[in-house]
Amino acid sequence: MTIIESVTNPRIKRLAGLLASKKQRDKYSLAAVEGARLCAEALEEEKNGRLHVVSVFASPQAAEKYSGYIDPKLFENDRSGKFVMISERAAQKIADTASPQGIFAEVEFWQDRLDAKTLSPLGRYAVLDGLRDPGNIGTVIRTADALGIDGAVLVDCCELYNPKLLRSAMGSAFRLPTAYAQSMEQVQEILSSCGIKTYAAVVDKDARDVTAAGLGAGCAVVIGNEGAGLSVKDADICDMKINIKMKGKAESLNAAAAAAILLWEMSKS
Amino acid sequence: MTIIESVTNPRIKRLAGLLASKKQRDKYSLAAVEGARLCAEALEEEKNGRLHVVSVFASPQAAEKYSGYIDPKLFENDRSGKFVMISERAAQKIADTASPQGIFAEVEFWQDRLDAKTLSPLGRYAVLDGLRDPGNIGTVIRTADALGIDGAVLVDCCELYNPKLLRSAMGSAFRLPTAYAQSMEQVQEILSSCGIKTYAAVVDKDARDVTAAGLGAGCAVVIGNEGAGLSVKDADICDMKINIKMKGKAESLNAAAAAAILLWEMSKS
Repeated sequence: MTIIESVTNPRIKRLAGLLASKKQRDKYSLAAVEGARLCAEALEEEKNGRLHVVSVFASPQAAEKYSGYIDPKLFENDRSGKFVMISERAAQKIADTASPQGIFAEVEFWQDRLDAKTLSPLGRYAVLDGLRDPGNIGTVIRTADALGIDGAVLVDCCELYNPKLLRSAMGSAFRLPTAYAQSMEQVQEILSSCGIKTYAAVVDKDARDVTAAGLGAGCAVVIGNEGAGLSVKDADICDMKINIKMKGKAESLNAAAAAAILLWEMSKS
Repeated sequence: MTIIESVTNPRIKRLAGLLASKKQRDKYSLAAVEGARLCAEALEEEKNGRLHVVSVFASPQAAEKYSGYIDPKLFENDRSGKFVMISERAAQKIADTASPQGIFAEVEFWQDRLDAKTLSPLGRYAVLDGLRDPGNIGTVIRTADALGIDGAVLVDCCELYNPKLLRSAMGSAFRLPTAYAQSMEQVQEILSSCGIKTYAAVVDKDARDVTAAGLGAGCAVVIGNEGAGLSVKDADICDMKINIKMKGKAESLNAAAAAAILLWEMSKS
């Protein structure tokens, strides 16, 4: 077992680039994940055949500290170059987080598993349209995964592989089938062709009460931007407009909180 | 109208201190809020007699840019010293945010309006026990306010006046009656004496399904720490344990997402 000390080592440089830049991620078709638990979840999903983990990097201190997540023997006995020890200095230098754990993994892009062939007319889906905060998007993906939602579509959002999104999704981004779409028109066309109805979440009080909208199998809830909500144009494209009746004084809910309520209502029935 | 240019001016120093430090906030019993919309909401709640806004500060650029939120004449015609113009340099220097808007307000502490005298046996309450992230706490307060929840109790959380909490609560922290408590024992004693039942949100699958727990008037939902959840000790103090049945693979929900579902279920009936 050797330890890569230098931050100018090509493998360290690539990992740092993947953490820092979408351009680098797209160039290699690789995502970088940071943190012991996330890396362990990626390896677990690799066992299930869902992901391909290209490399795992850890400092000796991190490998020991987080041995409950990843067996340190994987680093000691590695001959393939997949499990790589790096210096603590290199680990601290490349980290994207404020309190780095010193464990990273490179994972091949796994997205795009949701398409007309995999959509079920009895499925339940979340469409995120124009969300800006990667943390919010990750939280919605985590909620959708927890509630047994069948997939998510990202329209005009950041990429699924944004490190902040991956951290807030807590491994759910590895599991929830997710696709990108160019526009709400495209989403409507594909979902409609599969017999799935789209429900636009709006603050308009004249929209149908979420509890009376018949949300359930064969439905997709469409959630809009954090500040501006769903555009009128995109809401009009959907089959129905729905509204969370708010008895209180706040004008709107946080996008992730609204999504939790909508996905919960869809998952219950 | 004069413009305070110097960052060493005593009023600027106090405002900067209130934004930066709990100690300073406690010393003066003042909260500092940042951002045009939040300041406008504070002034609106002052009209309703709920708050006392001590000062509003804005740079000339901010006063013009955000004139839709706060009438710039309030600064021009001010004789009381309540509406204060500050230099753009001072505004940028004291800001707590990454993209400062250049508008701030000092508001007298308004909390502690929830006590045994104001609790209703038909009220609906949120108890936050050991949450660590001010952004999460603010999101729950915003959700509670939107859903018409009657009040929140903070046990072992950060203070209500944390600037990050106030920003994520989006004005709801001004409106939702909120109290601090020393311990879950104390919360249980006070709520119980008012005839309010407490429901501990736990991940234990043997707990009562949230939809079958009879959540509604006269109930308080108790939500625990982001990572560890509610402690066994505090959950045992509550009248009942409840669980959000998760059909998916994620082990748990984000605390704010779980709170949204629980408060929604409590507010519906």
